[in-house]
Amino acid sequence: MTFDRIHNSIKIIMLGGLNEVGKNLAVLECGDDIIMIDCGLGFPDEEMPGVDLVIPDTSYLEQNADKIRGLFLTHGHEDHIGGIPYVLRKLNFPIYGTELTLGILENKLADHELAVEPELHSVKAGDVIYAGCFSVEFIRVNHSIADACALAVRYPGGTIVHTGDFKLDTSPIEGEMMDLTRFGEIGQEGVTLLMCESTNAERPGYTPSEKKVGQSLDNIFTLNPGKRVVIATFSSNVHRVQQIINVSSAHGRKVAITGRSMLNVVNAAARLGYMKVPDGLLIDLNDISRYNPEQVTIITTGTQGEPMSSLSRMAFLTHDKVKLGPSDLVVISASAIPGNEKMVRKIVNELLKNGVSVFRDDSVAVHVSGHACQEEIKLLIGLTRPKYFMPMHGEYKQMYANKLLAEYMGIPASNIFISDIGKVLEITPDGAEITGEVTSGKVLVDGYGIGDIGSVVLRDRKQLSLDGILAIVTTVDTAEQYIVSGPDVISRGFVYVKESEGLVEEIRALAKDTIENCLYAGIVDYNEIKAQTKTAIHKFIFSQTGRKPMILPIIMDV
Amino acid sequence: MTFDRIHNSIKIIMLGGLNEVGKNLAVLECGDDIIMIDCGLGFPDEEMPGVDLVIPDTSYLEQNADKIRGLFLTHGHEDHIGGIPYVLRKLNFPIYGTELTLGILENKLADHELAVEPELHSVKAGDVIYAGCFSVEFIRVNHSIADACALAVRYPGGTIVHTGDFKLDTSPIEGEMMDLTRFGEIGQEGVTLLMCESTNAERPGYTPSEKKVGQSLDNIFTLNPGKRVVIATFSSNVHRVQQIINVSSAHGRKVAITGRSMLNVVNAAARLGYMKVPDGLLIDLNDISRYNPEQVTIITTGTQGEPMSSLSRMAFLTHDKVKLGPSDLVVISASAIPGNEKMVRKIVNELLKNGVSVFRDDSVAVHVSGHACQEEIKLLIGLTRPKYFMPMHGEYKQMYANKLLAEYMGIPASNIFISDIGKVLEITPDGAEITGEVTSGKVLVDGYGIGDIGSVVLRDRKQLSLDGILAIVTTVDTAEQYIVSGPDVISRGFVYVKESEGLVEEIRALAKDTIENCLYAGIVDYNEIKAQTKTAIHKFIFSQTGRKPMILPIIMDV
Repeated sequence: MTFDRIHNSIKIIMLGGLNEVGKNLAVLECGDDIIMIDCGLGFPDEEMPGVDLVIPDTSYLEQNADKIRGLFLTHGHEDHIGGIPYVLRKLNFPIYGTELTLGILENKLADHELAVEPELHSVKAGDVIYAGCFSVEFIRVNHSIADACALAVRYPGGTIVHTGDFKLDTSPIEGEMMDLTRFGEIGQEGVTLLMCESTNAERPGYTPSEKKVGQSLDNIFTLNPGKRVVIATFSSNVHRVQQIINVSSAHGRKVAITGRSMLNVVNAAARLGYMKVPDGLLIDLNDISRYNPEQVTIITTGTQGEPMSSLSRMAFLTHDKVKLGPSDLVVISASAIPGNEKMVRKIVNELLKNGVSVFRDDSVAVHVSGHACQEEIKLLIGLTRPKYFMPMHGEYKQMYANKLLAEYMGIPASNIFISDIGKVLEITPDGAEITGEVTSGKVLVDGYGIGDIGSVVLRDRKQLSLDGILAIVTTVDTAEQYIVSGPDVISRGFVYVKESEGLVEEIRALAKDTIENCLYAGIVDYNEIKAQTKTAIHKFIFSQTGRKPMILPIIMDV
Repeated sequence: MTFDRIHNSIKIIMLGGLNEVGKNLAVLECGDDIIMIDCGLGFPDEEMPGVDLVIPDTSYLEQNADKIRGLFLTHGHEDHIGGIPYVLRKLNFPIYGTELTLGILENKLADHELAVEPELHSVKAGDVIYAGCFSVEFIRVNHSIADACALAVRYPGGTIVHTGDFKLDTSPIEGEMMDLTRFGEIGQEGVTLLMCESTNAERPGYTPSEKKVGQSLDNIFTLNPGKRVVIATFSSNVHRVQQIINVSSAHGRKVAITGRSMLNVVNAAARLGYMKVPDGLLIDLNDISRYNPEQVTIITTGTQGEPMSSLSRMAFLTHDKVKLGPSDLVVISASAIPGNEKMVRKIVNELLKNGVSVFRDDSVAVHVSGHACQEEIKLLIGLTRPKYFMPMHGEYKQMYANKLLAEYMGIPASNIFISDIGKVLEITPDGAEITGEVTSGKVLVDGYGIGDIGSVVLRDRKQLSLDGILAIVTTVDTAEQYIVSGPDVISRGFVYVKESEGLVEEIRALAKDTIENCLYAGIVDYNEIKAQTKTAIHKFIFSQTGRKPMILPIIMDV
């Protein structure tokens, strides 16, 4: 390839943000320059017991560390910035984002001991950053966190628009409406590729304005004048918190805030000017008993039913400062993230049992999504008129729905790419195709350990959780061919030994027979004795109980 | 109490079917007579790893075995009959139900080796059975399984109506519409208590007719003439299967059936006359390749995304007889039971990746619920006009919604009882109140073991699943105060030893020091040595890794 051809071509590699919620990380490579867009973390599913977090595999970036010109952040949500502290252990690069995004990132970095001091550059919507052969323009969008942007990335061969997470809110709470004009102008210049989020691509219509939530809350406050109000929401939804503060203030209520992340965000947002809190409105949670129920609003975390959250402790009456009862009203101003429905329902059941009134988005509009529905996606495609289209950020079925929208808008199916983690989409002046693959995948974080949990460990944990473990401990004298002591049978998570003495005694006898038979037959290889013991006991236990505990034969020689 | 007073009073004890989905079991006790209504099983939640089934604790029935006059079944779903084989191990009693209900029960009982041969009595809607001082009338209702009934239970002091699971279907596929007239007549005689299911009590309006699904399927067949159609549904939904057969036949398609339970039910239903299958319509799954795609419909199980089901194997391309691709269309004719959403979405993602078209009830009416929505519940309350009302069969929030409906219909809040498992609701001529509690709860079934899994075992399984286990094996000579061999460190589900040799070596050294220090200090009590080892290693591992594996110190003496 000629120099010119190299610079007119671009590789798009998604290391996260496809086929799995969270973990967004897009890599754009042109010649000797790489930029990254977002770097998120995800949460483990039921196949990853004990795992705390999941981050994208960044081997490809480590191999190309010298090419990296910067990381560009669209907004401050965990699934877009949460992976940064882990990646910074191996790499360093300048990071660009808006003020609130960086403010949240700084809080996060402070919790990690990092060898490097990352270079953070604050930008505003409209700013253009030059990085190698790239230029990156930040464009205002609306989302469920303030100060969110899409990116227009220019390289010598064209322009790529990356939506980040977005919705169109014609009446935002604070700040401006998504910059449709700028998207249209860039569309007129010509867009090579639109990378578009897919979260709500299956939902028809438009996502309602955040303002709608304020109206619902106002109604609830008006119709329930005698009640104390507890509202749970995501701490990062600064506009939602602002609306709760406004409505409370209008109804003559004081506001108490609980939950560590909620306090952090309110403080940061107020300090940076993203939130306006009337003087004297906030009170300490310790002082709520000095007010009547109708004089207080409590804002809390715990919308996902997390067992240790403030809301959960309030519901199960274990919160030391907030005792809920019939004079309380709880609003869960969020939808349950898929997988969390059961935990949230537990909280609701418990609140109702205790006589608390509960409002959720299944009956009232106390929550609106932060993501674009079908008409908004179509609008953006219509404005940017891209040659190529890549759905991102969603499960396959959501990306597939997004693909159908693009086809509906006239983009040929052959110009739409549902990529896969690690696949390389290469766009040249002649066309676009998947040309290869780089190392990629999920890296599991458990405690302080990063990447030391593999499939064998997960498989063991899964088996242990289903039927427990039985250790069979025996001391033998292989020279003299006899059992010195044992076998002892130790059970954890299998059966309660005291209540199943007969079964345990039979297991012990079988182990004894098996090991003695080995010894008499002159078998002195421990692995062989262990294997025979394991097989015999597995078979016996399964026939007796239908269970398959892990069997751990331990043989010691004198 | 006088004899008369005893017989004019009744106790209602729910051993299942409150606050937890599944496991229905109601006990009605009057004088020396007890009848049971339904006896279901439930499935474990994430707090019960390795548990296969959950059944109600029947201690109270065992203590009162001589009083039991019979078990009355409303319909043949697992959560209403699945517990019977387990209860029959300890008790025997006559069982009454409609023909299809008993047909399904007989299939189930055949899988269990039972010492007793239970007495099964087939009834029809309209029949009245006398049992002690009770009479029980079966009343036709509609539901997602054929031959479902509600029960009117008369005792000397009044009448109790138990809805079972019901909906009103004015255009049922086969059989009759719910017998509104009979409910009205019984209402005119006077109803003491209405026990009403709550599944859809939060949903406004009416549940649509089953017929709607047939219309949707017909549209799908018409609009996709060239495709092979695979339809997944619940095997027990005989009417749904009938409609699939009808539509396929009308479109000139043969029908192949897969999934063990689906084959069982179709055979039983056809034999008993609940289903009409045109001659020559059914073909063997082995023969589908002899037909063009547009000539075949496949009916399968697996609507809940169960990993080993036919549908799941088709989606992941591991089914040996059905290879799905772009010429196939899959209809999932069921909604995901709460908790199963994630597994179902996995299947959908996989099908779309393989180019298969997918229809679900989120976009087309390919499924309708079998449970009454708010207007149907209100209709039933209006017809029966009960003095007292008890919501049952649902989570608390659903029962609470049902309570609000009853209040709306004019039943005073003080006459509505949301009971709890094991609580005794006693109704006398003077009033109704909760008067006591009997032994009750969940019995866990794991393999062949019933009730031998307790909270300690579950807690161990949970801990094992999170961080695994480390066995520390040492042979000591307590007399001579030295370590003969070991300590050996064996890890399962903690870290992969080969990849964490440094850490394991440090653990080994720490264990050695701790045990030697004990021996030198003259500590010969194994429990004390184990406790010290455990504490030291726990602390070390947590500081190094942030994890808390189970530590199992094993000490052998020579």
